[in-house]
Amino acid sequence: MKPTLRGADRASALLGLPGWTDCPDRDAITKTFRFRNFAEAFSFMTHVALAAERMNHHPDWSNAYDRVMITLSSHDAGGVTLRDTRLAQAIEEAAARTGSIPAP
Amino acid sequence: MKPTLRGADRASALLGLPGWTDCPDRDAITKTFRFRNFAEAFSFMTHVALAAERMNHHPDWSNAYDRVMITLSSHDAGGVTLRDTRLAQAIEEAAARTGSIPAP
Amino acid sequence: MKPTLRGADRASALLGLPGWTDCPDRDAITKTFRFRNFAEAFSFMTHVALAAERMNHHPDWSNAYDRVMITLSSHDAGGVTLRDTRLAQAIEEAAARTGSIPAP
Amino acid sequence: MKPTLRGADRASALLGLPGWTDCPDRDAITKTFRFRNFAEAFSFMTHVALAAERMNHHPDWSNAYDRVMITLSSHDAGGVTLRDTRLAQAIEEAAARTGSIPAP
Repeated sequence: MKPTLRGADRASALLGLPGWTDCPDRDAITKTFRFRNFAEAFSFMTHVALAAERMNHHPDWSNAYDRVMITLSSHDAGGVTLRDTRLAQAIEEAAARTGSIPAP
Repeated sequence: MKPTLRGADRASALLGLPGWTDCPDRDAITKTFRFRNFAEAFSFMTHVALAAERMNHHPDWSNAYDRVMITLSSHDAGGVTLRDTRLAQAIEEAAARTGSIPAP
Repeated sequence: MKPTLRGADRASALLGLPGWTDCPDRDAITKTFRFRNFAEAFSFMTHVALAAERMNHHPDWSNAYDRVMITLSSHDAGGVTLRDTRLAQAIEEAAARTGSIPAP
Repeated sequence: MKPTLRGADRASALLGLPGWTDCPDRDAITKTFRFRNFAEAFSFMTHVALAAERMNHHPDWSNAYDRVMITLSSHDAGGVTLRDTRLAQAIEEAAARTGSIPAP
């Protein structure tokens, strides 16, 4: 079980993850991604699903047509750990590859 | 644009969709599916995604590891229509094929 | 059933589909796509699967790690029709979105 | 790098994998799966893709509508190893979950 990221470690980890923010209601980080249509959104989700299975660490996420909202937290550790920031980094790469567009 | 389902029509449509219930806060229907693990949950989601794209009608849904919560509503009609109950039927078939287990 | 594309019509359709070539052994068109890894290749395949289901026209295809080889033909028409060139166009868009790299 | 399975070890491994056979032209094992339609076939493929990424061992496979033909071999070892029979076992479980029907 990894320790949760706090203080300067957390700020430093989030610096490399543009658009990811702390959840207001629990110790987790979140970001919303937007795509041109459902097919692009779900292709991105498939990419993320494969990364999650490879890392054995899975997101809490939701989708509505062209939007995907992802929340990451390490349930066993009770907060955000390096497993979350590593998965967030893989998600950023997937978003760059699958045509994410800026969410308004 | 299809008319929203109300009264006896809606009750009748839900009779054929066990486990689907009305949302408390908006005119929509919802059901939570549970699977043995993430891979099974996401395979089910892929099946649903293909049905949604074929029917050109998409769910609002979320996933956390082995659970998939699906909410259906026709945004243009402002409520539940036959498009939703038809998609719910396709989702039921996908759940039967991909090993859904009873959600506690 | 659509007529098969022949002669100038076919040459014209292939002009807009760079990298697609006629199969040597049957009336079909084919192209091989390459990606950075399996996750990108399979995300692309998911994008194509959704397009195929939407268009109700499906590819013959194979995958080995970072490569996806796609062959298109209209079985009922016995050759290449507009359904194939339209699916090829959707595949090109999916490849552009999911980070296809030049196949050597 | 794992040793290739030969002789009694191989026969024993294949005993637990009904329908899997040796390829005639190279040291690999193969099986064809059949489904009710494309959506079921591709959901199965997604399940297999997730297992492959988790095991970091990937199939050579092809799909035509309701059929999925899978060939397994360990390229680095030059033949069939325990990595292949383990992936084949995961594929059998995926097939059982996603509604594979007997291929004629």
